[in-house]
Amino acid sequence: MAINKDRVLLNIKKLSAYTVPNIECAVKLDGNESPYNLEDELGEKIRSELQKVEFNRYPDPNLNSIRSKFAEIYSFPKEGILLGNGSDEIIQMLITVFSGKSETVLIPKPTFSMYRLSSLAQNKSVVESKLDENFDIDLDDFKNMIFEYDPDLIFLATPNNPTGNAFSREKIIEIINCTDAIVVIDEAYFEFCEQDFLSTINNFDNLMVLRTMSKIGFASIRLGMLFGNPELVLELNKARMPYNINSLSQSVMNVVLENKKIVDEKIGLILSERENLKAGLQKISGLEVYPSDANFFLVKTEDSDFLFNELVKKDILIRNMNNEGRLKNCIRITVGTPKENEKLLGALTSIFSN
Amino acid sequence: MAINKDRVLLNIKKLSAYTVPNIECAVKLDGNESPYNLEDELGEKIRSELQKVEFNRYPDPNLNSIRSKFAEIYSFPKEGILLGNGSDEIIQMLITVFSGKSETVLIPKPTFSMYRLSSLAQNKSVVESKLDENFDIDLDDFKNMIFEYDPDLIFLATPNNPTGNAFSREKIIEIINCTDAIVVIDEAYFEFCEQDFLSTINNFDNLMVLRTMSKIGFASIRLGMLFGNPELVLELNKARMPYNINSLSQSVMNVVLENKKIVDEKIGLILSERENLKAGLQKISGLEVYPSDANFFLVKTEDSDFLFNELVKKDILIRNMNNEGRLKNCIRITVGTPKENEKLLGALTSIFSN
Repeated sequence: MAINKDRVLLNIKKLSAYTVPNIECAVKLDGNESPYNLEDELGEKIRSELQKVEFNRYPDPNLNSIRSKFAEIYSFPKEGILLGNGSDEIIQMLITVFSGKSETVLIPKPTFSMYRLSSLAQNKSVVESKLDENFDIDLDDFKNMIFEYDPDLIFLATPNNPTGNAFSREKIIEIINCTDAIVVIDEAYFEFCEQDFLSTINNFDNLMVLRTMSKIGFASIRLGMLFGNPELVLELNKARMPYNINSLSQSVMNVVLENKKIVDEKIGLILSERENLKAGLQKISGLEVYPSDANFFLVKTEDSDFLFNELVKKDILIRNMNNEGRLKNCIRITVGTPKENEKLLGALTSIFSN
Repeated sequence: MAINKDRVLLNIKKLSAYTVPNIECAVKLDGNESPYNLEDELGEKIRSELQKVEFNRYPDPNLNSIRSKFAEIYSFPKEGILLGNGSDEIIQMLITVFSGKSETVLIPKPTFSMYRLSSLAQNKSVVESKLDENFDIDLDDFKNMIFEYDPDLIFLATPNNPTGNAFSREKIIEIINCTDAIVVIDEAYFEFCEQDFLSTINNFDNLMVLRTMSKIGFASIRLGMLFGNPELVLELNKARMPYNINSLSQSVMNVVLENKKIVDEKIGLILSERENLKAGLQKISGLEVYPSDANFFLVKTEDSDFLFNELVKKDILIRNMNNEGRLKNCIRITVGTPKENEKLLGALTSIFSN
């Protein structure tokens, strides 16, 4: 019988496969990762803990040890904490579970692409509200869309990716209060920002807060954390695969959470380096640097494809965000180590002085 | 606003949360794991490879290195290989993607519970065809259900879990040939069986074969592998989260696939020990031992709850499968090390002689 694609969901057929360009550069400023690997005592501890993993045994399906540690660190009920194979998997679970009425997901535009892709792959409708001229939420438009489409689920990344700014707290609160949809505040970058919603989560019953280990030194292990009302987390947990976090990641996280101070110190380094990088970028004519509350900058230039390629020639990888609309000719630059940022600034200076 | 569960998918509300009993015993024969951890040169190599992981960087989203190695080992096109965070995640992707017509999944009963749970969580219909008196496929009934429900997707685990037997090859081929549904043969236990479908996969365009590292010593790292026509894998890949296999698991797998001979030797040990355990179990009156083509036995007894608890008292954990229907008073026993099996047989003898 011939390959029959009738059995493939139409929405999937319409999607393009997600591809990541296969380019390797010595200076890697494209992925919003922390530039600091574990060349310290924490690294030693983690590597020695990994020696103890029982490779032949399934991981703890209840994730008791790390959920307890998160509960203690955040003074949050353990039953209200759900862990995922990266935020990606939690986003997927949220879309699966919170689709009880309209099967519609509302998001800003532009924002993190996975909300849209994951919704479409699961055959849900996606509606998008365009951000205003400061990349903040357009509150009237957003509320109109809530009224018109009655979404089951709303994702708000703050600070937002790829724009870098935090949304207005007042606008977010007004959104949470004007709907019974589940509002997920994705705080992937909150460590680089002045505000967060986790600390006031109890004020809102339809609010869930998503975080990740990926931006603060642990992108390799894939761990996302969701905080919310235990009743809602119980429902999400029914859609969670029982062994979704493997033994190796659990082992690493046990050490990390016992040594959180060392992780936090690295965040301080990135924050101060962000200011240095900003000052440097602003000196280069030909670049418009948008304000950042995250560990990266969105930057507009005249020809982002050209700039991307020139930087690759100089062994520096950034993210080319170029597409139609607001991100036309935009690039995204992750804050690196002082040395990496210096190399980038040098390269940019030489490119723009030619 | 009060917790509003209107936004929760009805099917999810109806599901019970998956719970794994929190019992620890010195002898662990409940999870169909390999009893052999890596106390050998392979363990050394793996542990030393893990030292090289860049913790701050995202994993390779294309999984190039391990997919290439699988392609070489199995002489299979790399584009036809999809990897998942355990078979569980691949099952989830298959259900997401192959739901283009009837949104119905057909499975035998009893079988691996995740097919049903994952389908229901994703709001698909599940229809079940009861196995015959030998726990083989009831071909007439199965084909009738294909005719009646026109499933998009069929899962056949062979050897089947929890029954332990392989299904008749002829019946499976007749099923594959009588439908354009995607038929997934789950070969999680094929290493302990005389036959497989991967070697003849090219004869069938609607056939996909699922395998796992979990039963042969690597349950900790969560890795499932799907083999199929590259055109179908391309569609599945659109629903795959780009970083679904973390860097640590990729690192371990790179070493394992370069040293597959050591892994295969352990399988030989389990196979010979299966025969010893079988002979021992058959000597105990009060137990009916079903034939096994896997690394475990399904065993019927008079009161499985009693037997389970008595074994726990003796520090031995098995799986109590007790529920209504064919599995009433059944337990599932994983083949352990010679020492573990001896302990189990001693415990059973003493329980049944009282």
